[in-house]
Amino acid sequence: MLRTHTCGELRSSHIGEQVTLAGWVQKVRDKGGMIWIDVRDRYGVTQLMFDEGSSDKETIARAREVGREFVIAAKGEVIERVSKNAKIPTGDVEIKVAELTVLNESKTPPFIIDDETDGGEDLRAKYRYLDLRRNIVRKNLEMRHQLLQKTRAYLSENSFMEVETPYLIKSTPEGARDFVVPSRMNPNQFYALPQSPQTFKQLLMVSGFDRYFQIVKCFRDEDLRADRQPEFTQIDCEMSFVTREDILNTFEGMIKYLFKEVKGVDLGELPHIPYAEAMSKYGSDKPDLRFGMEFHELNDVAQGAGFVVFDSAELVVGINAEGCAEYTRKQLDELTNFVKKPQIGAKGLVYVKCNADGTFKSSVDKFFDQDALKKWAEKFGAKPGDLLLILAGDAGKTRKALNELRLEMGTRLGLRDKNTYAAAWVVDFPLLEWDEETERYHAMHHPFTSPNPDDFDKLVSDPGSVRANAYDMVVNGVELGGGSIRIHDRNVQSQMFDALGFTKEEAQEQFGFLMSAFEYGAPPHGGIAFGFDRLCALFGGQDSIRDFIAFPKNTSGRDVMIDSPSVIDTDQLEELHLKLTVPSKSDQ
Amino acid sequence: MLRTHTCGELRSSHIGEQVTLAGWVQKVRDKGGMIWIDVRDRYGVTQLMFDEGSSDKETIARAREVGREFVIAAKGEVIERVSKNAKIPTGDVEIKVAELTVLNESKTPPFIIDDETDGGEDLRAKYRYLDLRRNIVRKNLEMRHQLLQKTRAYLSENSFMEVETPYLIKSTPEGARDFVVPSRMNPNQFYALPQSPQTFKQLLMVSGFDRYFQIVKCFRDEDLRADRQPEFTQIDCEMSFVTREDILNTFEGMIKYLFKEVKGVDLGELPHIPYAEAMSKYGSDKPDLRFGMEFHELNDVAQGAGFVVFDSAELVVGINAEGCAEYTRKQLDELTNFVKKPQIGAKGLVYVKCNADGTFKSSVDKFFDQDALKKWAEKFGAKPGDLLLILAGDAGKTRKALNELRLEMGTRLGLRDKNTYAAAWVVDFPLLEWDEETERYHAMHHPFTSPNPDDFDKLVSDPGSVRANAYDMVVNGVELGGGSIRIHDRNVQSQMFDALGFTKEEAQEQFGFLMSAFEYGAPPHGGIAFGFDRLCALFGGQDSIRDFIAFPKNTSGRDVMIDSPSVIDTDQLEELHLKLTVPSKSDQ
Repeated sequence: MLRTHTCGELRSSHIGEQVTLAGWVQKVRDKGGMIWIDVRDRYGVTQLMFDEGSSDKETIARAREVGREFVIAAKGEVIERVSKNAKIPTGDVEIKVAELTVLNESKTPPFIIDDETDGGEDLRAKYRYLDLRRNIVRKNLEMRHQLLQKTRAYLSENSFMEVETPYLIKSTPEGARDFVVPSRMNPNQFYALPQSPQTFKQLLMVSGFDRYFQIVKCFRDEDLRADRQPEFTQIDCEMSFVTREDILNTFEGMIKYLFKEVKGVDLGELPHIPYAEAMSKYGSDKPDLRFGMEFHELNDVAQGAGFVVFDSAELVVGINAEGCAEYTRKQLDELTNFVKKPQIGAKGLVYVKCNADGTFKSSVDKFFDQDALKKWAEKFGAKPGDLLLILAGDAGKTRKALNELRLEMGTRLGLRDKNTYAAAWVVDFPLLEWDEETERYHAMHHPFTSPNPDDFDKLVSDPGSVRANAYDMVVNGVELGGGSIRIHDRNVQSQMFDALGFTKEEAQEQFGFLMSAFEYGAPPHGGIAFGFDRLCALFGGQDSIRDFIAFPKNTSGRDVMIDSPSVIDTDQLEELHLKLTVPSKSDQ
Repeated sequence: MLRTHTCGELRSSHIGEQVTLAGWVQKVRDKGGMIWIDVRDRYGVTQLMFDEGSSDKETIARAREVGREFVIAAKGEVIERVSKNAKIPTGDVEIKVAELTVLNESKTPPFIIDDETDGGEDLRAKYRYLDLRRNIVRKNLEMRHQLLQKTRAYLSENSFMEVETPYLIKSTPEGARDFVVPSRMNPNQFYALPQSPQTFKQLLMVSGFDRYFQIVKCFRDEDLRADRQPEFTQIDCEMSFVTREDILNTFEGMIKYLFKEVKGVDLGELPHIPYAEAMSKYGSDKPDLRFGMEFHELNDVAQGAGFVVFDSAELVVGINAEGCAEYTRKQLDELTNFVKKPQIGAKGLVYVKCNADGTFKSSVDKFFDQDALKKWAEKFGAKPGDLLLILAGDAGKTRKALNELRLEMGTRLGLRDKNTYAAAWVVDFPLLEWDEETERYHAMHHPFTSPNPDDFDKLVSDPGSVRANAYDMVVNGVELGGGSIRIHDRNVQSQMFDALGFTKEEAQEQFGFLMSAFEYGAPPHGGIAFGFDRLCALFGGQDSIRDFIAFPKNTSGRDVMIDSPSVIDTDQLEELHLKLTVPSKSDQ
């Protein structure tokens, strides 16, 4: 090695030793005949010291030549540092350098490489390899490394077998849009990149692999929202001979293990919340459970008083913002404007202040007297000092809007601490969703999701009310993973296809070879997949997954660092039997 | 769980317990009022027992209905088996079944699901999910799982950080042909799938990640030879601040650890064989070192005797097949035909039998007397009873042919046992190869491979003689991995580009952003990549990697199980701004 120790390794116990360190120049100070250089590597920072009085001239001269981000090697003695730096683990010592080598020079970097940087997002994306030198970015990826290892350790320990499924697979019309790969050897034909290894993992269950996992890249050619990537990583798992409870236990075990091992957090037992309850209590199938502020419905006490907004509403529902009775006009206007934003879409906000003296002040005093408001407050379990916030309208949209308001209030009240974790299972999702456009039911999860056995007889009579044997894991309002018990019985499967309005031929065309495989003894099985980028972001206490991916793409799907995608040679297109239909601006 | 134990778990100590097993029906025997069913899962096989005398009628009837590969669950008491089966770990017990459930039926499988199968290769490929049920196939993948875990454990333990690099990257004209992915959002532009994460791992070194690894899929759109896959898995690694010796030590450590942990084999220390020595001793840069049979050159003693084949040859070279002096005419003819095969290309084979009585008998007795042949035998270190096999011609081609003959003799003499492992490093590869067609030098490894510092001054004067700081790990004649110390110095890099005949502009165009990254402080670094499929096959003692991949493709790059690649919708093509140039046989 070109070093004897890393830059994070030396302690007082090394004093007197001859060492060689190598790394990047973080900082140079030159003062009163002394030069100090902070040399940095992945493991830490160590101070190098040069003294005009005792170091030789050449070394001093060389030390004066080095600039920020130069790569150097320094040989010398570990000595006690005069002014110790308790902030860094190596802060008790420094190296009195006898020999300094410049291993490589550096141009002045385009932004400051430190936790606080002057580089904007675009600049840092272009020079991602320099952004990755920053401690806070690298630490995210170190945590990702740790999560990768611990996840695999847990699953291996629990008899899951890691199996690599193919990346060049077959395009299917179901689901999101595929990325495709033209085949040179098979003209006019294309591979598709997997949106998930769903089919393959079910085949592995048919193969008797019993427990499968893989941490795997998946691909979706969708228009990218702020926090979506065209390629993303998934913890993909499947188990045979299990009930829903077995799967929930196994993966509750996994997530608790990861939180304990990586964050030192004891997650506690995960409650099971039925979908219907999550929707009525929180207006969301991924409720943030770090705080309460549950929904209370007011139809019975708020309708019929002549207030047309309430009287004409399908649902009148609100939350209790505890201790917010003192909110000012301005604050209440902010909240009203918040719920009226187009993406939230409420028409207005009704508030009731529960004053300290036991009286009430509301925005609908014209229609409701103190007695009426008192009834409401009782419904909410409100105390003097609390603020009731109420929305009304179409049930679905109103719940959705109130969910947003609840989260906003949670944020305002500091109830959504990034270092507090509240996890739950949301269960009993509807099996089918009615699609107005195509006028038929769609599988909410996918067409192999098993119905809840208790609802099986309703598959024909009342398909919309059938619950799926499906589950999501939700942590801090984020859907971390989801899955289902699959259908393994061909009769149930064919009834499912009927409910989805597939003809036998359509079912065969789209799912043919999986259907065939299922004829040779498919075991009862089920599985789950976790968004690994999302898991990393959650563990890092951040919202954006981009900071947890080494080389992410921007919202146009571009990697601005390598400037990809890009044009390719016409020869290459010819070999692939393809022609562009959009005239290109240049011939490359 | 739908079972209390797996089918591989029960022992005498369980006798008397009530258990439930679930799995596939391997075999049914019905004899004298008794029925035995072997039930199988990933973990083993257990015998179920039904007795007309004591089991209830319904259960007996159901037991008689099940066929091969039915999925069943059986509940009953563990009892001692009358005729024990020492061949299987559960052979001391059986289950006296009280309750039998058919979880799923199965059609009769298209081939026998057992170690010995009647299924041909094509049939098994089409029904790969059934082929994977066979023990010997699944065991390969279980070993693969274990190698995955152990590899990552070793590397993590040695401070390597796993970093996932992108799959949608940029096409480059260098190297093999890329698979490309059209971008819908960026018309006329394409991503490429990585042939390896080479650029990204070097960027991670520039980022100061110090030690990187990843077990990653790579893609090459090449015409497929028998044992090549369009997608394959690589153990990809890179280290900073290292010399060649550090890398060799680290990965020698890895391979020895894997052999010890997974095979229980102590690999011993790996010799370092210079490329030139490998070529002159074995005619190959990946010599099979399980046996000696080194080359001996005869030019000085065999030329000038009037035998024109030798006299006109650049090289006369042979091997000593010990103990083969008794080879018959037929055997010798076989060997002659072997070396004359077009893919081997020798013109003929000269043999010398070292007879037991000390005399010699050769195919060139006309030109060489006993004294001359004796001199040859001395050169070969041959004893009475040995057989010398000699080729002559152009040096390169002759060595290549003799390598094949050496391997053939090794096989014939049983010197290439699959359970014996001989590993070595081949080092000091040439940096550059002269390409007759383009009349310029090409980088043998890649253009960032560092020259051996001792040869640096010859980069201009005698580029062909410069050795690379590159290395391959060779085990049993298979190149398992290879890598190099990279160039981190821009002056060396620009001289390298000169030697390769690149203009500055060409270099910039092809390697621009890596070159730019290197201007911001690139550390000295180097790395290696191992073919993971190959490693698995080697550990499994087999030649074909296909048996170690869950869902391999055939030599046309097709997955015959899912029937991929396939045609895609015209809508999809339109969205991608593409048109097919080959008329399609149908519109899908």
